[in-house]
Amino acid sequence: MDTVTVLTDFGGKDPYVGIMKGVMLAVNPRLAIVDITHEVEAQDVREACFLIGEYYPYFPEGTVHLCVVDPTVGSARKPLVVSKGGHSFVGPDNGLFSLLFAAGDASAHEIVDRRFMREPVSATFHGRDIFAPAAAHLSAGTDPSEFGPAVEGPVMLPALFPLLSGGVMEGEIVRFDRFGNGISNIPFGAFKAFTGGAPYLVELCGLSFPALSRSYYDGRHTCVVGSSGYLEFGLFKGDLAEELSLKKGERVKVTRR
Amino acid sequence: MDTVTVLTDFGGKDPYVGIMKGVMLAVNPRLAIVDITHEVEAQDVREACFLIGEYYPYFPEGTVHLCVVDPTVGSARKPLVVSKGGHSFVGPDNGLFSLLFAAGDASAHEIVDRRFMREPVSATFHGRDIFAPAAAHLSAGTDPSEFGPAVEGPVMLPALFPLLSGGVMEGEIVRFDRFGNGISNIPFGAFKAFTGGAPYLVELCGLSFPALSRSYYDGRHTCVVGSSGYLEFGLFKGDLAEELSLKKGERVKVTRR
Amino acid sequence: MDTVTVLTDFGGKDPYVGIMKGVMLAVNPRLAIVDITHEVEAQDVREACFLIGEYYPYFPEGTVHLCVVDPTVGSARKPLVVSKGGHSFVGPDNGLFSLLFAAGDASAHEIVDRRFMREPVSATFHGRDIFAPAAAHLSAGTDPSEFGPAVEGPVMLPALFPLLSGGVMEGEIVRFDRFGNGISNIPFGAFKAFTGGAPYLVELCGLSFPALSRSYYDGRHTCVVGSSGYLEFGLFKGDLAEELSLKKGERVKVTRR
Repeated sequence: MDTVTVLTDFGGKDPYVGIMKGVMLAVNPRLAIVDITHEVEAQDVREACFLIGEYYPYFPEGTVHLCVVDPTVGSARKPLVVSKGGHSFVGPDNGLFSLLFAAGDASAHEIVDRRFMREPVSATFHGRDIFAPAAAHLSAGTDPSEFGPAVEGPVMLPALFPLLSGGVMEGEIVRFDRFGNGISNIPFGAFKAFTGGAPYLVELCGLSFPALSRSYYDGRHTCVVGSSGYLEFGLFKGDLAEELSLKKGERVKVTRR
Repeated sequence: MDTVTVLTDFGGKDPYVGIMKGVMLAVNPRLAIVDITHEVEAQDVREACFLIGEYYPYFPEGTVHLCVVDPTVGSARKPLVVSKGGHSFVGPDNGLFSLLFAAGDASAHEIVDRRFMREPVSATFHGRDIFAPAAAHLSAGTDPSEFGPAVEGPVMLPALFPLLSGGVMEGEIVRFDRFGNGISNIPFGAFKAFTGGAPYLVELCGLSFPALSRSYYDGRHTCVVGSSGYLEFGLFKGDLAEELSLKKGERVKVTRR
Repeated sequence: MDTVTVLTDFGGKDPYVGIMKGVMLAVNPRLAIVDITHEVEAQDVREACFLIGEYYPYFPEGTVHLCVVDPTVGSARKPLVVSKGGHSFVGPDNGLFSLLFAAGDASAHEIVDRRFMREPVSATFHGRDIFAPAAAHLSAGTDPSEFGPAVEGPVMLPALFPLLSGGVMEGEIVRFDRFGNGISNIPFGAFKAFTGGAPYLVELCGLSFPALSRSYYDGRHTCVVGSSGYLEFGLFKGDLAEELSLKKGERVKVTRR
């Protein structure tokens, strides 16, 4: 079996995800389709970018990842095939794949060959007309270079990583989980390298944490290392995002004391 | 692999969809099961009917489509197998498959042969006891005629298509997408044939549109041709259904000026 | 194909279910993964326990059921492989599998062999690090006894079954379906054996029912035998849980008159 995973912001109510699945099976009937989520916040490319970085490494090499969060569909933004470490990714060149490129060793090709598209290509649903067929062709063995020319300088989202300046590490909240816990872009590894074993303070929105907790049960407000490997913030049996009116982009500051 | 798609109004919380999947895999272990949606509005046969017309053509021939929106389960309504263009459909004879029959070239068989049912057949869950096993048997190669006699005159929903009278084309809103955009039953093809190139006005609930927009971003209120091929209505970054207290069935009028 | 079903309380928004799917496919690429639900109420082991009892029997023998509702993850509670009637189950030893053990003929093994785990094993996500890999190895043919020693006396939830005392049968509401219908732990078989054909009264929260209804359409308030085989309670076109402020655990009383 060939495996394609699917991540979108389409929600579960409309037929659009089902349509993409049909298009893929029509190209490659040996396909196993694995839903990741269709509940990415509408048009939130940044949230999707961090999610992709989180789930893809758990899949076996050879997996194709179809990622459709595409607010500028119909504009001149390029449709991409991205290759990295034996995995393939298909989606728009809007920053979705920034973490893959930032980690190095990723290459991208623009999808231009009409043989791999549905005809006619609509202005509004490239998921169906370009991305799903490309994912299915990739899963069936088409080489990324067959889709079109290599892309140099794909679109990168700003501020992917925490910044270091004047003895302060500053990151931000990039997504919320279903319980309202806030997940930052500060990897535990970078945090540990920065604090080095010295006393520190983590601050978010008026809260300060002189230590990390082992779990969300260890206090009313907690800062923990989530299973994602990033610093996360929670409220015991509550919704931190709601309590603090937290928004994505809220700053997270780490200072050495 | 044999493919069965599944559409229901069961939601994602209860075990009923999982139970149907188990029943199908017990009949045909070579089955690939593809979720379309389980968020059809409860008991809304009309919404499901338009959804089915939208997604099924994207699947390859040979696909079986299990469709369970069944408000009259337990009554005398017939369980059906429908065949059209190499696709098979399984579900209740309550209008779900109206668009298939209206397009011509579809045939239906009643499911009466108990060999293809789970025993005992409950009064409340034909999805599990009749439809899922039938879908699995179809996917494994059972011919539609083996399930039971041909059905002449299956149940048809009223007012599937826009009406033409006195130089006016009148359709209606048949479903809303997750953003509250209203999707009509006026196909772009029929609209174009009606307006011919002459000036026109599209009216919905006090709004009027002298032209179609290319996308939902082209104005505060827009009328666009959706990826479904039907006229759709939206509010820029808002929920049109909520703003106008739109209900399904709301009239859409097209006049030539 | 080998089949693994997945039930969790992770919801559909976060990447955690997708991550478990990736882990499983990395172990066994021949895997067909079937979602049951990810909408179990957060950390409600009891709800999950009754759901598992409901859907698993519909799957073919040889199916592996991955069940992750794990409020005490990181504590000393054991990770289990449970075998019953040709089915395998993987999840925490917290009562999730009580109904399987109560029905007899089930055996359990603790998962201790690190060969079947991801390294390093986190304190917070055993679904990814222990349960998903174990499910995949089971599906690929690993014998339950290879994971670790047999477990005697697995954790059992209290009050699984209705109690009989003084001519009264007393059960409780164990879950609500998406419409707010309340599902009890009183199996129709036990109810019938208890009432035996004599007049009876079923009581819930001030409501009393001298007879069962055939369906939720047969009255304003109804008590029916659900497709699960348990007594259920509903409000015609309404949400009974909301109307009565019903909570899980609410008593259901059956008396012979």
